[in-house]
Amino acid sequence: MCELLGMSANVPTDIVFSFTGLMQRGGRTGPHRDGWGIGFYEGRGLRLFQDPSASAESEVARLVQQYPIKSEVVIGHIRQANVGKVALANTHPFVREMWGRNWCFAHNGQLADFQPAPGFYRPVGDTDSEAAFCDLLNRLRAAFPEPADIEALLPTLIEACREYRRKGVFNCLLSDGDWLFSCCSTKLVQITRRAPFGPARLKDADLTVDFQAETTPNDVVTVLATEALTDNEDWIVHQPGQWTLWRGGECIAEGCDTLSD
Amino acid sequence: MCELLGMSANVPTDIVFSFTGLMQRGGRTGPHRDGWGIGFYEGRGLRLFQDPSASAESEVARLVQQYPIKSEVVIGHIRQANVGKVALANTHPFVREMWGRNWCFAHNGQLADFQPAPGFYRPVGDTDSEAAFCDLLNRLRAAFPEPADIEALLPTLIEACREYRRKGVFNCLLSDGDWLFSCCSTKLVQITRRAPFGPARLKDADLTVDFQAETTPNDVVTVLATEALTDNEDWIVHQPGQWTLWRGGECIAEGCDTLSD
Repeated sequence: MCELLGMSANVPTDIVFSFTGLMQRGGRTGPHRDGWGIGFYEGRGLRLFQDPSASAESEVARLVQQYPIKSEVVIGHIRQANVGKVALANTHPFVREMWGRNWCFAHNGQLADFQPAPGFYRPVGDTDSEAAFCDLLNRLRAAFPEPADIEALLPTLIEACREYRRKGVFNCLLSDGDWLFSCCSTKLVQITRRAPFGPARLKDADLTVDFQAETTPNDVVTVLATEALTDNEDWIVHQPGQWTLWRGGECIAEGCDTLSD
Repeated sequence: MCELLGMSANVPTDIVFSFTGLMQRGGRTGPHRDGWGIGFYEGRGLRLFQDPSASAESEVARLVQQYPIKSEVVIGHIRQANVGKVALANTHPFVREMWGRNWCFAHNGQLADFQPAPGFYRPVGDTDSEAAFCDLLNRLRAAFPEPADIEALLPTLIEACREYRRKGVFNCLLSDGDWLFSCCSTKLVQITRRAPFGPARLKDADLTVDFQAETTPNDVVTVLATEALTDNEDWIVHQPGQWTLWRGGECIAEGCDTLSD
């Protein structure tokens, strides 16, 4: 399995603290040694760092920790390979341009025997995750030949996620740089940090940050992760079927889509 | 204007030497301060580093120089903004997935009043270069609904390049990770290094490399650039309309497509 990391904020914010915790799980405090990646939106541009090696030992991961990139939306992932060999092409997050925007996607879980019909978007690597991402975009484009707001797309998106959840485990993060969408199948937690800010202590590394010293009173920053990254804060646990939509650190829509038999 | 850098090799080869020379031209020995980027193919995966700041001062460029990534196909670019503001979304090279492969493109030049019909691929930023890349892919997909070999695609590709050259200056590099294509409108040079290797000395930095010590006798490495990167080697100058296609460091097709009035 893998671990996910997402951030939505109302001001450009660096994610060095959370990223530093997550990276330890890629070979040091966790078994996810088969690559890692992180995408930072910068306006409509997307800065993607990936490495098919263990994040705890990756030169590129070290750079990302030393070089605080400020972003309003971030999607990160560390991989423990199930489907698809260890290779750059199989490393999350995956990116495709749709409607003149960079769509970025990361998946935790596994879909059994997933063979979607080939469409316009096709996987480059051989993971079930990338195949699901391509299928999702193909469905959205089939339903909406021209660009549509996320609010209009949501029912199609949720319906697609339901189908993927029927085929296995499908925790995911998705963004077009404006909003951040999550879908929980088995495991996802969230924390929203806003004034009054306090100190936060990483679970996986000997690191504490005083967010009060690093933020302004108006900052709102939400972090989503597979498992809580700090041990002195209350992370909210998502339920199976729960989806959320974030913009500027705030939840703008959410729901729970329970699978019926 | 901008500068291009391309590499095609028959073994995974690092491009640190050429990249080090090119990066100086981004704010030190040249005026291309408005961002830089480089894409390294690793199998079917593509590792893309970009920064909208001057390459001579970029932290990420320093990492790329210190961390020799080995690749068989590389496309790099340094930018002096003409069309489109300085922003990550306007930074070359541009990437799109087509037919399950990462297509990577960089452009030197400017197309006057270029407004192609919107198609499936749409620009994320606002450069004429990205618009031309999207138009090119839209044309290829319109002509070939299913994946085709580069040999079959070439006439469509060359015809598209001819049209872009009619609209302005269009020097470009394009790859799907297997082959590397170049089109010269005004300025492009090339060198193929093979045994017996000798020393090469950068024009833009005090750096000499002895390729004999760094290579095996079977290595073949071709570098394409806007201007020669070394001052002790003979670079071949491309003519207006000249296109080339490379695989494994060797030229597998070439021609000259002269514009008739």
